Amino acid sequence: MKYLHTMVRVNDLEKSLDFYCNKLGLIELRRNDYEKGRFTLVFLGADENSEAQVELTYNWESEDYDEGRNFGHLAYSVENIYQLCQKLTDAGITINRPPRDGHMAFIRSPDNISIELLQQGDALAPEEPWMSMANAGKW
Amino acid sequence: MKYLHTMVRVNDLEKSLDFYCNKLGLIELRRNDYEKGRFTLVFLGADENSEAQVELTYNWESEDYDEGRNFGHLAYSVENIYQLCQKLTDAGITINRPPRDGHMAFIRSPDNISIELLQQGDALAPEEPWMSMANAGKW
Repeated sequence: MKYLHTMVRVNDLEKSLDFYCNKLGLIELRRNDYEKGRFTLVFLGADENSEAQVELTYNWESEDYDEGRNFGHLAYSVENIYQLCQKLTDAGITINRPPRDGHMAFIRSPDNISIELLQQGDALAPEEPWMSMANAGKW
Repeated sequence: MKYLHTMVRVNDLEKSLDFYCNKLGLIELRRNDYEKGRFTLVFLGADENSEAQVELTYNWESEDYDEGRNFGHLAYSVENIYQLCQKLTDAGITINRPPRDGHMAFIRSPDNISIELLQQGDALAPEEPWMSMANAGKW
């Protein structure tokens, strides 16, 4: 038995790919368009274990997708949580839970999928502007 | 960057561990109780890639968790989809989307997390009772 992917639905494929790939740093591995069913599937992976994927489902009849409480978040470890949070901030992404502890942050996708970022190895030394930054919204 | 886990909230930890481990076949890798926050985290993995995990969050003040449409499902490949679906059926789990094609099935967790099961390698030859079995509910 093998974990393959977590599927999430996206309202706007280009906006989601910009978020997950250009901003967060995942890699697009394959994409299939299904003309008959009028949907597109895109599989994304992280560079260190790209076999464990996220599947984006984009229905061509665009919909807004609500969130529920049974799903919590996706989690990734990252090489430098401050550098990534700075890159995300510069790209206009809100850091809902800033990495005040040099260890953990939360952001949300355009469809409100919560994403946990964890510093690889030991936590980084607390550092401004992160250590004084307040939470923003929920995650 | 590395995928770590997908977190889901569970209303009843014992019922969820029975579902995910005894029935579905995941392995409990570690468990931490947080007395102060009054919650328990349990990490589960599949035998072939146990580093890609599911994190169960159990809040001791039990809640029912609703579902949303932005999250779709968790997907696992399995050695023999008929054998697993039979084991699940015998254990009282509804096969919402039976593997009529010898390739794909869907079930749901006690908290309505949808789970896709995919046959490893080529699809199995269609076989009764699966090939005549109707869908049950949604997934």
